[in-house]
Amino acid sequence: MTTNNEAAVLYGVEDIRIEQRLVPSPAAREVLVAIRSVGVCGSDVHYYRHGRIGDFVVRSPLILGHESSGVVVDVGTSVTRTHVGQRVALEPGVPCGHCAQCRSGRYNLCPHVQFFATPPIDGTFTNYVNIDEDFAHPVPDALSDDAAALLEPLSVAIWANRKAGVSVGSHVLVTGAGPIGILAAQVAAAAGAARVTIVDINSERLATAQALGVEHTMHRPTESALCTLESDVLLECSGAPSVISPAIRSIRPAGVAILTGMSGSADISLPVAAIQSRELTVTGTFRYANTYAQAIALATSAAVNLDALVGLRLPLAAAEDALRAATTHPAVLKTIVTMQD
Amino acid sequence: MTTNNEAAVLYGVEDIRIEQRLVPSPAAREVLVAIRSVGVCGSDVHYYRHGRIGDFVVRSPLILGHESSGVVVDVGTSVTRTHVGQRVALEPGVPCGHCAQCRSGRYNLCPHVQFFATPPIDGTFTNYVNIDEDFAHPVPDALSDDAAALLEPLSVAIWANRKAGVSVGSHVLVTGAGPIGILAAQVAAAAGAARVTIVDINSERLATAQALGVEHTMHRPTESALCTLESDVLLECSGAPSVISPAIRSIRPAGVAILTGMSGSADISLPVAAIQSRELTVTGTFRYANTYAQAIALATSAAVNLDALVGLRLPLAAAEDALRAATTHPAVLKTIVTMQD
Amino acid sequence: MTTNNEAAVLYGVEDIRIEQRLVPSPAAREVLVAIRSVGVCGSDVHYYRHGRIGDFVVRSPLILGHESSGVVVDVGTSVTRTHVGQRVALEPGVPCGHCAQCRSGRYNLCPHVQFFATPPIDGTFTNYVNIDEDFAHPVPDALSDDAAALLEPLSVAIWANRKAGVSVGSHVLVTGAGPIGILAAQVAAAAGAARVTIVDINSERLATAQALGVEHTMHRPTESALCTLESDVLLECSGAPSVISPAIRSIRPAGVAILTGMSGSADISLPVAAIQSRELTVTGTFRYANTYAQAIALATSAAVNLDALVGLRLPLAAAEDALRAATTHPAVLKTIVTMQD
Amino acid sequence: MTTNNEAAVLYGVEDIRIEQRLVPSPAAREVLVAIRSVGVCGSDVHYYRHGRIGDFVVRSPLILGHESSGVVVDVGTSVTRTHVGQRVALEPGVPCGHCAQCRSGRYNLCPHVQFFATPPIDGTFTNYVNIDEDFAHPVPDALSDDAAALLEPLSVAIWANRKAGVSVGSHVLVTGAGPIGILAAQVAAAAGAARVTIVDINSERLATAQALGVEHTMHRPTESALCTLESDVLLECSGAPSVISPAIRSIRPAGVAILTGMSGSADISLPVAAIQSRELTVTGTFRYANTYAQAIALATSAAVNLDALVGLRLPLAAAEDALRAATTHPAVLKTIVTMQD
Repeated sequence: MTTNNEAAVLYGVEDIRIEQRLVPSPAAREVLVAIRSVGVCGSDVHYYRHGRIGDFVVRSPLILGHESSGVVVDVGTSVTRTHVGQRVALEPGVPCGHCAQCRSGRYNLCPHVQFFATPPIDGTFTNYVNIDEDFAHPVPDALSDDAAALLEPLSVAIWANRKAGVSVGSHVLVTGAGPIGILAAQVAAAAGAARVTIVDINSERLATAQALGVEHTMHRPTESALCTLESDVLLECSGAPSVISPAIRSIRPAGVAILTGMSGSADISLPVAAIQSRELTVTGTFRYANTYAQAIALATSAAVNLDALVGLRLPLAAAEDALRAATTHPAVLKTIVTMQD
Repeated sequence: MTTNNEAAVLYGVEDIRIEQRLVPSPAAREVLVAIRSVGVCGSDVHYYRHGRIGDFVVRSPLILGHESSGVVVDVGTSVTRTHVGQRVALEPGVPCGHCAQCRSGRYNLCPHVQFFATPPIDGTFTNYVNIDEDFAHPVPDALSDDAAALLEPLSVAIWANRKAGVSVGSHVLVTGAGPIGILAAQVAAAAGAARVTIVDINSERLATAQALGVEHTMHRPTESALCTLESDVLLECSGAPSVISPAIRSIRPAGVAILTGMSGSADISLPVAAIQSRELTVTGTFRYANTYAQAIALATSAAVNLDALVGLRLPLAAAEDALRAATTHPAVLKTIVTMQD
Repeated sequence: MTTNNEAAVLYGVEDIRIEQRLVPSPAAREVLVAIRSVGVCGSDVHYYRHGRIGDFVVRSPLILGHESSGVVVDVGTSVTRTHVGQRVALEPGVPCGHCAQCRSGRYNLCPHVQFFATPPIDGTFTNYVNIDEDFAHPVPDALSDDAAALLEPLSVAIWANRKAGVSVGSHVLVTGAGPIGILAAQVAAAAGAARVTIVDINSERLATAQALGVEHTMHRPTESALCTLESDVLLECSGAPSVISPAIRSIRPAGVAILTGMSGSADISLPVAAIQSRELTVTGTFRYANTYAQAIALATSAAVNLDALVGLRLPLAAAEDALRAATTHPAVLKTIVTMQD
Repeated sequence: MTTNNEAAVLYGVEDIRIEQRLVPSPAAREVLVAIRSVGVCGSDVHYYRHGRIGDFVVRSPLILGHESSGVVVDVGTSVTRTHVGQRVALEPGVPCGHCAQCRSGRYNLCPHVQFFATPPIDGTFTNYVNIDEDFAHPVPDALSDDAAALLEPLSVAIWANRKAGVSVGSHVLVTGAGPIGILAAQVAAAAGAARVTIVDINSERLATAQALGVEHTMHRPTESALCTLESDVLLECSGAPSVISPAIRSIRPAGVAILTGMSGSADISLPVAAIQSRELTVTGTFRYANTYAQAIALATSAAVNLDALVGLRLPLAAAEDALRAATTHPAVLKTIVTMQD
């Protein structure tokens, strides 16, 4: 094992520096993972551009990156289920396991969670990280390193579908054809949805969605066009306030709206009269819990093709270019930062 | 049986006229009920003052009133479960029984429902009405006529609690100490809630709530005061937009907010960031379904005291005074219009 | 429209007679359907062989058949959604729409249901039947008459899956590779199950299941072999008491067992200690409710191939041969009785 | 703090010896508790009489006792929420916090749980024990030491009710009027059940149940007498196979049966035909999860009176007499072993 541990560190707005860090030693229940692939998430880009997301502020140098895969290269003294050489996907948030939320099975809401690349916890744009063995999920050979990294956004999509109760026969409307929206649509189809429609204001994104197997697309639909869909479920993945209200109003009585996309504003006007008169259920998602087994199953089957999302691969030294790719390569759905062993 | 059938008919804004109507004959599955008590609901007052509620517009003369009890005086040819002389509470909305909503057990969302005093369906400020036998619920002797009429607002309160999943140990925040809020608080306590707190901007209403057994009250609380309650459940019964957001933000992670109070506006700004980061569930209620058996059980036990809500009783001839009582007798929680047989 | 209405009538054990019946007139809310295809169900065969199923006894001549499709040839005066010429699948049980079960959305448990071919209600081995318009489901051209008839057993399979909560990532064990078991397995796969295994004592049936797309089969597995599957869900479709206990014992903690297969006995020994220590949920299914929309969606997509189940097609005049096909053509999964217009 | 730590140790069938043990030191996340009250459970008596319960065999000397309260006398280095002097109720099973069951909120099914007095884990018939701080629940002054200990059987009762979904208006049948049955009935009433009926073969127990506030009792009812109750929910707390089947058959369609009482046999004949035709849900309970907050709330309110269950109090030195009290004092519902500080 090398002791060379490079990291791409955010020092301030649009200030990424490549540094050498020590290779950490795994604690008793941890494994040391040599990172292979890390997906660039919108939140990474947001921290890079603005130095904060809402109340989460980058106050000291921070390593970004949290969609990651790698290989176990060392294990702590109490590790029992994972071994050196095991390829793993890293679930990026490790909860405390003790609080009321953890004990109720909602560990994504644990107030003590340590989540990669959420200040002040460093992320995975680096060669080596430690992680609790329970959150280093073994992946089958059939999954590429990139696909294993992208089990993380797939988890977001699974969680949205699970909260919505998408099942056989559901009519699902997905707003926003970014990576999360496309994955949410694919998961809905895998769950037996009878009709999945994705909408966006960008027709290229819709073309990509269609190329990736999403059956129905609509470009800048009017509210009445949305209403013709008679959707049971809205999976809101755009974060665009102008879309949320008409989309909610288009849902059938007793339907469900899941707000997954992040908007910049704490408050948004919602159609409360429709929520009441049709008894719609509106809820949001915050990360996910207990999704990796399902994500691995879906990605291993033909249901979801994670590799097809990847449009650009850059080495760690070019991490800043990767964070800028949203601007420089707008057609790319997902950029991967790769590590050299 | 008399053929004298007086009715208080709304002809226009603040224009109620007492008229003679024919006594209707029950259809095959209907019973004819001699009305005894009818509670005045905020919606009756709203139609009286404004001639409409949202999209529901009074276009032709309309009999108001939908919180009603009475005695069966005639039965249709197919009626099997009810008999002449039976005291009944009238569930005011009769659904079609055939549509997708009805067949799914959500008959309150039936698009074909016929609901008393919702235009163009006449209500029960009259001596005699017909109703489907399944919606004329027999009541025990222990319930007064007034209490039997008030099973209707109690149903609203039960439905809010049921949607919220209030159960043993819940911490419940009720916003708005009107009749629905007070009943919602009482039902929450009956369901085993560990702590029920009701808040209002009117301290007299809070005093009444306390007199009626609601344990905790708060007068114009700040948001941080609400947060100290660590509520699992919000039962929003005020309809006041200024209250809804701070109340939602005060709920614990994975909590539930039920919007029961009607505001005048179709859209309200809601704290979406909190809904997402704490995965709060927000939904509304529209009337109720399958609540009368529970309402009768609660009202018959000591859990809920419906008679104690009644502050004013007026005869049908004074129906207009009853509709004005909200202004003339602001301390009265519930006004009853009584019928002479 | 012809007035020729032939029917295959069960007069007693193994005594089927072809008779002429009057063509009925549709009541106000009914449609008259010219039957096209009727699947033979195990219950039809059981009535034919034994004259009863449990408490349901054939006391007077009975027309069998309840898995049916056809074409609307006349409509009652109140019919609004269906028109002459419409191809329809007949949901065979018409509930009362009024009782507590109906009003709760569980119309399959309606004590007043009228179900084709359940004594004393005649079934569909005949040219013409009336049915409530809400239970004559329009089917798309893409579905054959046989497939439309087989939406009925598909509904049984959907209901079992829905009760079990089969969803993305589920590990599902199906016991019994008859038509219901195979359909249950196909529905589970369509709902995103990660692994579906069907077991049987008959290896030919398992070969058929595999040919129909069920991925994993096991022939006469031992209990310990079942345990290696780590199933979350058991869909019991065999009715064989010797299989039920080991299958239940093989389920993971907090798993679900759905008893769909009918055994001949009212009581069966179940592994209560395992049900307790692993908190397994055991429930049964009785017909289905609100499944036809999903069934049509699944059958219209590639998810389920109903035509592939059909191994034998016989005219109404040979209805008795059709009822004997279970013995004479044991490899046939589904026999269809076809009608000549 | 004394270093004197007496313990009542089971050496074999009906062989209890009082021994001196070392006072343990708390690990980092543990608190050391000076035990005050320990309830005697049927499982303690069963180990004492038979040396085993099913697969759990006492192979080496074992300290019994798991219904316990006490005072914190020392804390580990990482303890943050509990302090010396805090009165606590001890939740007896500490799960691993890492496995799939724990991460799903079902920590009662954790395969790695360490549960007091389940071999080979020692229990609380001793002066001092260590326990993870999260499982030492602070109790208010209003709760006696005995009541705090009996939050454990109350948790069993809460769990049964929660699994059953007992709520406002439920009709609940409880079979078996032992401590668990009586507590289950009290919790059902606290959850708003409209009617709670407890049945037993012992009329003295029923008299006690009635004295403790259970409204309806039935002595050795016939099955048809049970059917008149039209129960939605069965809470089976007797473990008597002869009672289970008629009780299940008496439940209304779509009802729920919770098997909480332990019978001696792994398999019991259950009425599968009724489970199917009425779609009854049958499940069992294994301990409980996330119940202590509710138990404290219920015991602190007037809803449940735990002290009233206590019929006999004996010092640790008489632990063997306490284990024999079921025989020597059959009318005693609950015996408490008390500790001298």
